[in-house]
Amino acid sequence: MAVYTDVSDEELGAFIDRFNIGTLLSYKGIAEGVENSNYLVHTETGYYILTLYEKRVNPDDLPFFLGLMQHLAGKGLNCPTPLIDRDGQMLGELAGRPAAMVTFLDGMWVRKPQLVHCSELGKGMARMHLAGADFEIKRPNSLSVDGWAPLLDASRDRAHEVKAGLAEELTAELDELQALWPKDLPSGVIHADLFPDNVFYLGKELSGLIDFYFACNDAFAYDVAICINAWCFEPDGMFNVTKARALLEGYRSVRPFSELEFDNLPLLCRGAALRFLLTRLYDWLSVPEGALVVPKDPLEYLRKLRFHRGVSNASAYGLDK
Amino acid sequence: MAVYTDVSDEELGAFIDRFNIGTLLSYKGIAEGVENSNYLVHTETGYYILTLYEKRVNPDDLPFFLGLMQHLAGKGLNCPTPLIDRDGQMLGELAGRPAAMVTFLDGMWVRKPQLVHCSELGKGMARMHLAGADFEIKRPNSLSVDGWAPLLDASRDRAHEVKAGLAEELTAELDELQALWPKDLPSGVIHADLFPDNVFYLGKELSGLIDFYFACNDAFAYDVAICINAWCFEPDGMFNVTKARALLEGYRSVRPFSELEFDNLPLLCRGAALRFLLTRLYDWLSVPEGALVVPKDPLEYLRKLRFHRGVSNASAYGLDK
Repeated sequence: MAVYTDVSDEELGAFIDRFNIGTLLSYKGIAEGVENSNYLVHTETGYYILTLYEKRVNPDDLPFFLGLMQHLAGKGLNCPTPLIDRDGQMLGELAGRPAAMVTFLDGMWVRKPQLVHCSELGKGMARMHLAGADFEIKRPNSLSVDGWAPLLDASRDRAHEVKAGLAEELTAELDELQALWPKDLPSGVIHADLFPDNVFYLGKELSGLIDFYFACNDAFAYDVAICINAWCFEPDGMFNVTKARALLEGYRSVRPFSELEFDNLPLLCRGAALRFLLTRLYDWLSVPEGALVVPKDPLEYLRKLRFHRGVSNASAYGLDK
Repeated sequence: MAVYTDVSDEELGAFIDRFNIGTLLSYKGIAEGVENSNYLVHTETGYYILTLYEKRVNPDDLPFFLGLMQHLAGKGLNCPTPLIDRDGQMLGELAGRPAAMVTFLDGMWVRKPQLVHCSELGKGMARMHLAGADFEIKRPNSLSVDGWAPLLDASRDRAHEVKAGLAEELTAELDELQALWPKDLPSGVIHADLFPDNVFYLGKELSGLIDFYFACNDAFAYDVAICINAWCFEPDGMFNVTKARALLEGYRSVRPFSELEFDNLPLLCRGAALRFLLTRLYDWLSVPEGALVVPKDPLEYLRKLRFHRGVSNASAYGLDK
């Protein structure tokens, strides 16, 4: 939750002149997102979001991210739409950073998701998977199974500070996942970070998906597995199978699961849990002593991982074949 | 720059129902202000700012702050106006914090103030001083001359970590200011924190004053002295007398200075410099090792203080008697 780069009114005014959106009236830094600096911008024609891409985003990936949002919006999906400037460009530069302006989406993320939100999420995610099918740029998922070994290695020596025996448990898990990881699942563009704060609702209706900066090409069902982890456990750590069923049934009503996806869902859920466990573990061990930002607890995902290890087939998630 | 308290959509929706401003459509935490949590709120009727008052604000002061904004807005001054709920209250409670909704002001603060901004600031500040004259609630200035000794004492033992001999220099300065501080200056409600980020402009026009959470009763000319410190030094530390003249002439065109104010201006500028030096020094020494937030440099204000000590009368600030 931060704004890393300050922008002057003069710089921003000049940047905005490249779009046909009228004079700048106000802008405010938004305390959301940990990767980039975001401003809510008001001009004579309405409200927009300005994003300055900070170091954690690879500039080479920006044509993929921005092009994807354009592509999905063009197919009728509710997501931020990058504005195109007079030269036909979506990407510009502001305050020494790559920068883009996107449309403002109404809606709020839900702190306590209910069944209806899970169901709507399932449908919206499936629509996104279908809408992205013919998007031409490709971006491999660097945080899938091949990326986990180097991540684990980076934390191995200090993992015991978080929990005794953690490195050993994760090494064994990773070995098994590497051996069993399915290769021929239906694939396409996935969001890969559909946590509740990236999904907007107006009342019970899903009003938009945001933050496509982890989007990549991977198995559709892996995106589903990420959401099962992110949406279907209660704050006390208990798995809520009713929410999972709502999510999966919602998804299936738009895009049916193949038999291979059904069979591999528990394994994909283990993988998704390991992926967030590993990045959280790395962040946890990297935060300087006394820092004001408290990193997210990696062990939340160890508990989720262990739950999925005890699941033998997708019916434990409420999904009938 | 932070949001300290997270608010759920349900809580906020219920809070907003107390005002007649339609259904909640979105809200985003704003990375502005270091004292409170602020959200930009969109409803069916427009945009508003929600403020949750955190620990550094004394709840007993809130009727003064909110009442003052209402009072000033009622006199035609551009400032955030607190909304009044169905029970006639401006102050409510949200997420366990005192909370208020105010109107949204367009405009931007200027990172590099020009002469015209200083002149407009002078006029706007004088208008605020006149508009506040008949505001009935009183709030003494706890950060004026009587408050500086305890502040200095709190940093005395470690001031040398910032600069050798600092405690001694400030003690001598404080002694002199306490002896000479004028008591009978024209007084009323002052803003007491009119730094550039609290003054909004649209182009060259002042469009609003914000953040009244240091406002109090004190000498009008002390408010002017704070602005001379905050607006009239260049980033390289040089005093810009042309900006000071613009500020003072702008002020005088709305509210003339008395002879006593004119004569005391250098002393008031020393006092204002010491006040910000002392709070910055305290914050500087209180920040935990490794924290991500970099406190403001106290020595910037030592240089300003020394400049004012070399000033014999207000003509050094470009002001003719």
